[in-house]
Amino acid sequence: MSEQNIGQSYYAEGISANDERSIDPAVIEILHKAEKDNVQTAHDRYAEQLPQCGFGDLGVCCRNCLQGPCRINPFGSPREGVCGANADLIVARNLLRTIVGGSASQSDHSYIALQCLDETVNGESNYDIRGNAKVISVATKLGIATEGRSDNEIAADIVAAAYADFGNHSSKPMRWLTATAPQERVDKWAELGILPTNPDREIRTAMHQTSMGVDGSPINLLLSSLKMGLVDGYAGLQMGTDIQDILFGIPAPVKSAANLGVLSSDKVNIIVHGHMPEVSEKIVEWAKKLEEEAKAVGATGIQLAGVCCSGNEVLMRQGVPMAGNYLSQEMAIITGAVELMVVDIQCFMPSITKVASCYHTKVVTTVPIGQLPEAEYIPFTPDTADAKAAEIVRMAIANFAHRDPRKVQIPDYRCEAWGGFSVEAIVGALSALDAEKPLKPLVDNIIAGNVFGAVGVVGCNNVKVRQDFQTVEMIKHLLANNVLVVATGCTAQALSKYGFMNPDGAAAYAGDGLKAVLTAVGEAAGLGAPLPPVLHMGSCVDNSRIGDLLGALAGYLGVSIADLPVAASAPELQHEKAVSIGTWAVALGVLTHCGVVPPILGSPLVTKVLTDDVEGLVGGKFFVELDPIKAADTMLEHIAAKRKALGI
Amino acid sequence: MSEQNIGQSYYAEGISANDERSIDPAVIEILHKAEKDNVQTAHDRYAEQLPQCGFGDLGVCCRNCLQGPCRINPFGSPREGVCGANADLIVARNLLRTIVGGSASQSDHSYIALQCLDETVNGESNYDIRGNAKVISVATKLGIATEGRSDNEIAADIVAAAYADFGNHSSKPMRWLTATAPQERVDKWAELGILPTNPDREIRTAMHQTSMGVDGSPINLLLSSLKMGLVDGYAGLQMGTDIQDILFGIPAPVKSAANLGVLSSDKVNIIVHGHMPEVSEKIVEWAKKLEEEAKAVGATGIQLAGVCCSGNEVLMRQGVPMAGNYLSQEMAIITGAVELMVVDIQCFMPSITKVASCYHTKVVTTVPIGQLPEAEYIPFTPDTADAKAAEIVRMAIANFAHRDPRKVQIPDYRCEAWGGFSVEAIVGALSALDAEKPLKPLVDNIIAGNVFGAVGVVGCNNVKVRQDFQTVEMIKHLLANNVLVVATGCTAQALSKYGFMNPDGAAAYAGDGLKAVLTAVGEAAGLGAPLPPVLHMGSCVDNSRIGDLLGALAGYLGVSIADLPVAASAPELQHEKAVSIGTWAVALGVLTHCGVVPPILGSPLVTKVLTDDVEGLVGGKFFVELDPIKAADTMLEHIAAKRKALGI
Repeated sequence: MSEQNIGQSYYAEGISANDERSIDPAVIEILHKAEKDNVQTAHDRYAEQLPQCGFGDLGVCCRNCLQGPCRINPFGSPREGVCGANADLIVARNLLRTIVGGSASQSDHSYIALQCLDETVNGESNYDIRGNAKVISVATKLGIATEGRSDNEIAADIVAAAYADFGNHSSKPMRWLTATAPQERVDKWAELGILPTNPDREIRTAMHQTSMGVDGSPINLLLSSLKMGLVDGYAGLQMGTDIQDILFGIPAPVKSAANLGVLSSDKVNIIVHGHMPEVSEKIVEWAKKLEEEAKAVGATGIQLAGVCCSGNEVLMRQGVPMAGNYLSQEMAIITGAVELMVVDIQCFMPSITKVASCYHTKVVTTVPIGQLPEAEYIPFTPDTADAKAAEIVRMAIANFAHRDPRKVQIPDYRCEAWGGFSVEAIVGALSALDAEKPLKPLVDNIIAGNVFGAVGVVGCNNVKVRQDFQTVEMIKHLLANNVLVVATGCTAQALSKYGFMNPDGAAAYAGDGLKAVLTAVGEAAGLGAPLPPVLHMGSCVDNSRIGDLLGALAGYLGVSIADLPVAASAPELQHEKAVSIGTWAVALGVLTHCGVVPPILGSPLVTKVLTDDVEGLVGGKFFVELDPIKAADTMLEHIAAKRKALGI
Repeated sequence: MSEQNIGQSYYAEGISANDERSIDPAVIEILHKAEKDNVQTAHDRYAEQLPQCGFGDLGVCCRNCLQGPCRINPFGSPREGVCGANADLIVARNLLRTIVGGSASQSDHSYIALQCLDETVNGESNYDIRGNAKVISVATKLGIATEGRSDNEIAADIVAAAYADFGNHSSKPMRWLTATAPQERVDKWAELGILPTNPDREIRTAMHQTSMGVDGSPINLLLSSLKMGLVDGYAGLQMGTDIQDILFGIPAPVKSAANLGVLSSDKVNIIVHGHMPEVSEKIVEWAKKLEEEAKAVGATGIQLAGVCCSGNEVLMRQGVPMAGNYLSQEMAIITGAVELMVVDIQCFMPSITKVASCYHTKVVTTVPIGQLPEAEYIPFTPDTADAKAAEIVRMAIANFAHRDPRKVQIPDYRCEAWGGFSVEAIVGALSALDAEKPLKPLVDNIIAGNVFGAVGVVGCNNVKVRQDFQTVEMIKHLLANNVLVVATGCTAQALSKYGFMNPDGAAAYAGDGLKAVLTAVGEAAGLGAPLPPVLHMGSCVDNSRIGDLLGALAGYLGVSIADLPVAASAPELQHEKAVSIGTWAVALGVLTHCGVVPPILGSPLVTKVLTDDVEGLVGGKFFVELDPIKAADTMLEHIAAKRKALGI
């Protein structure tokens, strides 16, 4: 199958279970290899877990004290746990703890980046400030003086402002939030009493609130969930992206490739996996520097490839190709061609060491809180990053000799995919059409109906649904209806594999109106081709970029984000982060689709609030739909209604 | 049954289920009334929950991502969740999240007190600094200058130091910890890399560490659990007690009473329930001020009584009697004699409004994160506390008219019980024997064998075990063997009901050696009677006092806390806080008993580490024993071994 081919005929129907686990032919090929090699994957473990616990699935299992576990029978008795908590309360408490898990993960991710910038500013790290324009833009929004000051001086104040948010003991809201979110949203959130002060305080308080015998009000807990979504949005996503752009540079459009075929049969293959560019950027740097050492052991060089958001980070800024998304992490190892997989935080399965033990692949962990008993642990710190990265790359090179060619099978699937669509890059491209009002051409086309609306599609894979299927089907339908799509995370990687992220995708997928706009912008911006119909905006932390874009559009139009003809979707959500990010999107005023059922259906109240009533409070709400076409249709109807309300 | 009687013959055997649910005859009487009144209690709800989920019970159920819920079969397949997490990893992750729940609850409790002290220092609250000696002692340990400065000036620096711990972005450990814990312990924890920097940072990081695809190392997660126990010990317990003593005064011995019989048939009965003295102290103050208003509605006055740790707080400092512990909260309402129950945070069952709806009782919530849909919400803030307390007391008075005498049944059980045994009070009493070296008489008696050792008994009730039974049986056995017992929390309230906390208890329960010591100290201290054999040291936050006492004893002897002939026990633990406090006790080096099985048995590794290996790291470990006599014997053996090692 050619690159063009995979971009179009991804729907691999088959009869064996393996063939139904993914629509990615590369993955299906490797699933068959796994079976032959007697290697268990997440799909096999999922099959063993079936049937999963219905109480947990509905969210009505409570383990918050040692009188439990308690569970509610939605169809009879018991209706209450030992303490008297009913289904509504249990579901609401569990949901808030899930969102705390997500927001804490992303705030901690930001904090790691913050510490790295701190040490960089103090000249104690192996990193530099590469995002000079971002230093200025972040300082400006925070009200930090820039005139006549060095990047380092300004960045030091940015560091202090970030730490101040994480140590804010006043009743004032997070500065990062008020500096970033549209005033209309800040006012709305203030009115609801859900403005977070300090991410860490809010996390601590929410864990307290959900402990035994504290909050008994589901509504109160749901409001805290919205607040916790804002913690993710501004302490996690926004601060994380801002600082990572300062350290590593603002992404600009870059051409690369996706799928397992990016691995090389004659190079040392290294996979970066996780979420921290601090690790993956240094691996990229040292893989280049040590290319000759790889040649000395008989390889033709070093092939880097990314999985999950580490992959997205180094795609966005370095053009490193993507081996695949979350459910492809084991597949990459099963090719037998990977010398080393280096992980940092989040979304790496504990199974990878066991899978790697069937091949020659080494797994390296790099962060104190992200260890695996069977992996090599090489702790990365800002001041040792170069030495550690060199050590890891050399470990991979040394391992090339242990590759067993009889076990190697690299599926011949790779697809051209572009990345790097930061807001700055998108505005830059649009500037070619109108330098003074860069958003005008886009908005004019929305008003004219050439672009019907926009959808942000984000999130994970989830073994409960066929890998990439819902994402791809839904996006095809949206693009055909002239909806501009932006994507992040593992969902972006899904779309990258099927030709949605290269210029040919405009012709293949976009409706006529959208195609014309993509072509015009692409030509004007000097790409010599249309823009891809789906713009890769980065990692899951980079959902902040979508928020920025929405804010800019609303600001340009002088309306609320809740009034825009847009929607969001996490068709294959899996991680707690996806739930907290989705909650932020709802708080922003965006209709947000879930393609996997979150564990809330055991509470009619929570379900109704999240999928209905919350719209009256913030303008956004969730909807759950497992059928990708119906999901797309719901978003199209929503966009049509928003267009009508705007009078366009 | 007389006061004397209940103090001695508590073991109420019976045949009906109600009779087996508690050993407290007052509770049993009310359980029968509940049945007659058709009111459901926690015991009934527990019966409906049976059988509880075995997977949850073993800790092998994982709901940390939307691919689950996953569960491990300890006897077969599946052995791994979707991501590859095995039983060890799932149990370790769940345990850390449980301890986060506990530590976050107690840190947040501290933080509420801190905010109150902050506003008090700034003259913006309705509170004063009453614990003048505590201002000096806390400042001294923190290294804050006291000479020639007002309490307010010093307290302002204490407030700043506390906020600084909650905003510490350096790698230095929490100042509150290093200022409080023995240096030997600090060194040990530093060696293990488990010194917390900032409670909020550690909570955020632990939630991240336990999210999907981060830490895959059970050992690493268990070390983080120990660290999280230290967060509870110093940001929760120690800081909480320090600040509460500064605001409300250092407790001193006070005579009071316990059990449901403290309620009055002709007074306005108000129950304070929860954990915040900020609320309960003001209710006490206003109940006194508004006594005449109660008389104006036909009552003979106002009777306050406490439940759970709010009860302990106002017992300790105000001598307010205790209506009962955790499992008595519904019973108090079912007497039909309670005009109003005011709650704040933690351990109030969401059921109480439903129970109250069967009587005339009003339930009032006071804290934003602790609401109940059917309760009156009267938010308490430091600057409105007086007005809110007056409003609540007046609400109770107005409700006296609605009491239905036909529904009233106050069990005739009340027992004299002393409280107020802060470390300062204990040292004060011992000073009567040796003013220069107050600990000498105690230590000399330990060396001489008159006092065999000491046990701290703490924690909750848990509906899984007969209320008070394990606690009482275990303590009888320990006292008979000359072990000095100190108690906090709902366990202290259990013991208060059966005569362990009044001077007669020395003769009734203590072995000869211990009795002689209690008598000598009591006489010398001018009590005119022996000390009670169990010293009530306060609320669950006041476990810090036990830590202080252990630190002082170890310091006096020049040994580690781990070398002392002491043990700890939570015979009826229920709340996540009990698990985090227990973990702190283990980190301190103390053998710690659990009388309810925590959800860890699904992991042989975690079970072995916590009940065995951890002793090699920190000197303390857990043991689980449901038989109270066997539990006591294990502690006695442990104490004997420690005595032998000390050569005494």
